[in-house]
Amino acid sequence: MQVHQILRSKPKADVVTVEPTVRVADAARLLAERRIGALMVATDGKHPLGILSERDIVRDLGRRGSICLEDKVESLMTRNLVTCAPGDNADAVLEKMTAGRFRHMPVIEGSEMVGIISIGDVVAARLSELAMEKDALENMIKGN
Amino acid sequence: MQVHQILRSKPKADVVTVEPTVRVADAARLLAERRIGALMVATDGKHPLGILSERDIVRDLGRRGSICLEDKVESLMTRNLVTCAPGDNADAVLEKMTAGRFRHMPVIEGSEMVGIISIGDVVAARLSELAMEKDALENMIKGN
Repeated sequence: MQVHQILRSKPKADVVTVEPTVRVADAARLLAERRIGALMVATDGKHPLGILSERDIVRDLGRRGSICLEDKVESLMTRNLVTCAPGDNADAVLEKMTAGRFRHMPVIEGSEMVGIISIGDVVAARLSELAMEKDALENMIKGN
Repeated sequence: MQVHQILRSKPKADVVTVEPTVRVADAARLLAERRIGALMVATDGKHPLGILSERDIVRDLGRRGSICLEDKVESLMTRNLVTCAPGDNADAVLEKMTAGRFRHMPVIEGSEMVGIISIGDVVAARLSELAMEKDALENMIKGN
């Protein structure tokens, strides 16, 4: 299974982006409203400068308290992006996510973002693939 | 693969618990210090009343602003716990997590917490199991 298949299987594959100068409090509101776990940070919506996750916000809240909510997204975001391409293998993506302990990965084609996938998206897609393979094997055994 | 095998494979399997009357700001500090994504809420450290995740905090921050940091953990925590048992199958746990869109699950034996597993823990354990199975098959083919 490849990343582009996972993107297609998501009910809503569009990436939510914010500008780097948005306040962290407003980014938290956007995460809550859209019911997502991470925002891509970009000025043009296409070329990512970083990613801001729930984890980034809570880590900084824990360290510095609520003052961090007045900061700009660019001061909290993770700049060192680990990305994948539409043709990458799902298991390789899962390995990167579990080794690096992060849960969202932007999908880049050429130099532009075409989506974002979470560890939950990848696992759900792999489980449904495994279930189909199992059904196919059972049908073979039954001689259908 | 069963849940107890995943617990054993974790570098640190102890559950971090907080009392329900702890302030959310202090819970956020604990999440940051321990570098974890969720806290179990319990008065005795054994019988969970709820779970408080990074997501719960950011959702409430987004809705109500930083005032929520002064609240008690019990007002933000998720009370409706989905749990698993040490003998449960890893794939069944992954299915519950992806269907319910949550990433942490307390492990209950009898009525007491014996651990907590994250979607990352389960995926890492399954990937390492698959890699071992693949090695075994390759050795069989090579006739080792």
